[in-house]
Amino acid sequence: MLAYSNSSREQVRVPNVIALVGLPARGKTYISHKLCRYLNWIGIKTKAFNVGEYRRKVCNLDEQGKYEFFNPNNKQGTKIRDECAKMAMEDMGRYLESKEGEVAIFDATNTTRKRRRWLVDFCKQEHREPKFRVFFIESVCDDPEIINSNIAEVKVSSPDYKGHMTEEQAKEDFLKRIENYKSQYEPLDEQLDDDLSFIKVINAGRSFYVHNVNGHVQSRVVYFLMNIHLLPRSIYLTRHGESEYNKIGRLGGDSPLSVNGEKYAKCLLEYFQHEKVPGDLRIWSSQKTRACQTASALKSVAAHVEYWKVLDEIDAGICEGLTYEDFEARYPKQFVERDKDKYHYRYPSGESYEDLVARLEPVIMELERQSNVLVVSHQAVLRCILAYFDNKNRQELPYLNVPLHTVIKLTPKAYSCKIEMFKFNIDAVDTYRAKPEIPTENGEEPSLDAHMPRVHIA
Amino acid sequence: MLAYSNSSREQVRVPNVIALVGLPARGKTYISHKLCRYLNWIGIKTKAFNVGEYRRKVCNLDEQGKYEFFNPNNKQGTKIRDECAKMAMEDMGRYLESKEGEVAIFDATNTTRKRRRWLVDFCKQEHREPKFRVFFIESVCDDPEIINSNIAEVKVSSPDYKGHMTEEQAKEDFLKRIENYKSQYEPLDEQLDDDLSFIKVINAGRSFYVHNVNGHVQSRVVYFLMNIHLLPRSIYLTRHGESEYNKIGRLGGDSPLSVNGEKYAKCLLEYFQHEKVPGDLRIWSSQKTRACQTASALKSVAAHVEYWKVLDEIDAGICEGLTYEDFEARYPKQFVERDKDKYHYRYPSGESYEDLVARLEPVIMELERQSNVLVVSHQAVLRCILAYFDNKNRQELPYLNVPLHTVIKLTPKAYSCKIEMFKFNIDAVDTYRAKPEIPTENGEEPSLDAHMPRVHIA
Repeated sequence: MLAYSNSSREQVRVPNVIALVGLPARGKTYISHKLCRYLNWIGIKTKAFNVGEYRRKVCNLDEQGKYEFFNPNNKQGTKIRDECAKMAMEDMGRYLESKEGEVAIFDATNTTRKRRRWLVDFCKQEHREPKFRVFFIESVCDDPEIINSNIAEVKVSSPDYKGHMTEEQAKEDFLKRIENYKSQYEPLDEQLDDDLSFIKVINAGRSFYVHNVNGHVQSRVVYFLMNIHLLPRSIYLTRHGESEYNKIGRLGGDSPLSVNGEKYAKCLLEYFQHEKVPGDLRIWSSQKTRACQTASALKSVAAHVEYWKVLDEIDAGICEGLTYEDFEARYPKQFVERDKDKYHYRYPSGESYEDLVARLEPVIMELERQSNVLVVSHQAVLRCILAYFDNKNRQELPYLNVPLHTVIKLTPKAYSCKIEMFKFNIDAVDTYRAKPEIPTENGEEPSLDAHMPRVHIA
Repeated sequence: MLAYSNSSREQVRVPNVIALVGLPARGKTYISHKLCRYLNWIGIKTKAFNVGEYRRKVCNLDEQGKYEFFNPNNKQGTKIRDECAKMAMEDMGRYLESKEGEVAIFDATNTTRKRRRWLVDFCKQEHREPKFRVFFIESVCDDPEIINSNIAEVKVSSPDYKGHMTEEQAKEDFLKRIENYKSQYEPLDEQLDDDLSFIKVINAGRSFYVHNVNGHVQSRVVYFLMNIHLLPRSIYLTRHGESEYNKIGRLGGDSPLSVNGEKYAKCLLEYFQHEKVPGDLRIWSSQKTRACQTASALKSVAAHVEYWKVLDEIDAGICEGLTYEDFEARYPKQFVERDKDKYHYRYPSGESYEDLVARLEPVIMELERQSNVLVVSHQAVLRCILAYFDNKNRQELPYLNVPLHTVIKLTPKAYSCKIEMFKFNIDAVDTYRAKPEIPTENGEEPSLDAHMPRVHIA
């Protein structure tokens, strides 16, 4: 039998640089974080290079936090800032050339045509084969409400200011810093920049101008940017209530809820009656009986209940219906293989976690577009979704703790996602199986801190 | 067991009107056809209403073909054209209100703000609950090459002209018709039309301006429009060579090629050596052994070979590894169910054709984006892909004839897709199973003309 690797990672061959463009407080770093998380999750290895962080590393906080540092006439300030941009760019070049990653996000203001040309020339340097593809994402915003909320939410607590100034002082300083950039800002232009590939995100996604999109990565990025939004909302995740198969430790199958599972469905209804979700709540359930039973108990609190086959549990192939003990006894080699690399391990005639992520991509995209949603699904599926929102890597993902009879509430914030767990006081078996402690080659045990948030008892 | 329907169709609840905007020969009908085909294929029932067709039905061909008819000062012409637009709009209203379909495409020039307002008012009429959502797609083009090729390709052979004028006369008349529209053309405007949802497609997709996208359908439409292109290319489909399982009539599984299957892989290589595909050829194969073996024989003619799990054959669940006879003997009820509605029938613990279409959607999107591609996959998967390009409905799809040892070459044209079949002279079993002739309620037999193109012997 020949070995064929998964395709998702192979689709990207040309290194891609994604460069942000825009005045301070236009959400560039927000976009950079979100994109980085999304691309990594779908399997395209991506790293963000934030020029501001380089600056904070090399210079005195007292000095460079102040707006005068950003005055284009401040020679020393300009020199330091140019130096930092160069360092970030060179690190980025090494990152892509060494094939450590496939996409680099260059998070800086890049507000002048000259600066952008410098970046493009760097990416097309003669010795590079293939050249890096460059895509610009410009965030343009003239809505004072969006700008002010961005300043209030992330800038006054930025390391540039925190502990040095009051919030008021920070805000004032920051507004002056913006003015310094405005004086030399040259937005991307349909005619003048016709040879570039870019998207302009206008007023946080009310409009977009998209030009000359080139290749798979750029196409995904554009689609993603068009689907994300900034409106406050929460996403709730829960597994179905305990099933008959859970009780006897069997994998997969399509068994109905146990008595405790039915109790959980009732308590879930009470939870949402008290939760008073603002606006509509949509419920998306898998098509497995245990999930459908759980979701359909909630019809009275939902605007819609939809049943998606893509939310069905990981297909355990030849192991469907077995217990872990059966699995180990019947297929001891497979069992060991799975523990070695759980993310990539594919059940014979079934799926791997990597396969699951590929099938869940449309769910993530639709979750990004939506407002409040409850997802009723299964352990492995919810691990993938949780890993996306909590920015967990492929080693951590298959070991995330998603217990039965627990609601996980996700509330996206500017640069992160608040995660709360509400555990219900209804008995359920524990289906968690920790990674066995296999000593690694250097004798240390692999660190796999599941790092779960504090659990509330609901 | 509760019955839960598939979600894809349930996601659309609000009726959507998609209205084209633009001068003649800007590819509006091309967009309308393509969108209609795509939305229907992904399960969103869609119909196009072409005002030009209404006009051709109601009036004298000799008269209305000529450009004077389209002069805004021609009172009779204007009256007839308004009347036709109204008829099309009312048909559209009935189509959506009766829930016969979910999306209506209003294919007309809609070049004035007044005309667009009329349409919006119609969609928001007081008695409608819910109101129809309206999305405008404007095609703007100032590239004479694109316009001329469009006129040459579809307009001179339009029913407005065919048989009435020479090609030269037709072209001249058509250019004058465009001038008549230009005089009153008001393009969609970022400021003036801020309350509308729209996309401007600029120069056949080089740029896009997207404004105020609202809901799932509009989001899909935008993504689709950004991925299609007009460049000439061909898509090749083939099943793997005959497998050991094919020979003994078993479903699914993961058996290797038979001796004849290996012969086919060699002949396929020769075929592509002679085919001289212009530019790069990409090969996408499923991850099943029989497909991988077939695809890897072609490495020397391909720029890339990628192995995609989403291209794996339909999962026959509990029927994997059975023959049709076993299936009928073991699960006689299931067997009959499948024949009744093959598109929606899901193998227990497996998939339906409907599930397949959902998992193949990203493949179609990527095929639209790419240039020349060969897909090496399986009977059921290729039926879904072929149905997309050949615009076949859900009754026809599961019965399309995709024989072994045959290359299907698809060459997209303006309003259709040229389909050629090259059958290789290498023995293979016939895996086609026709729909059994079950008399329908009125005594007639269902007509299921697989309507395949002429087969070439390669």
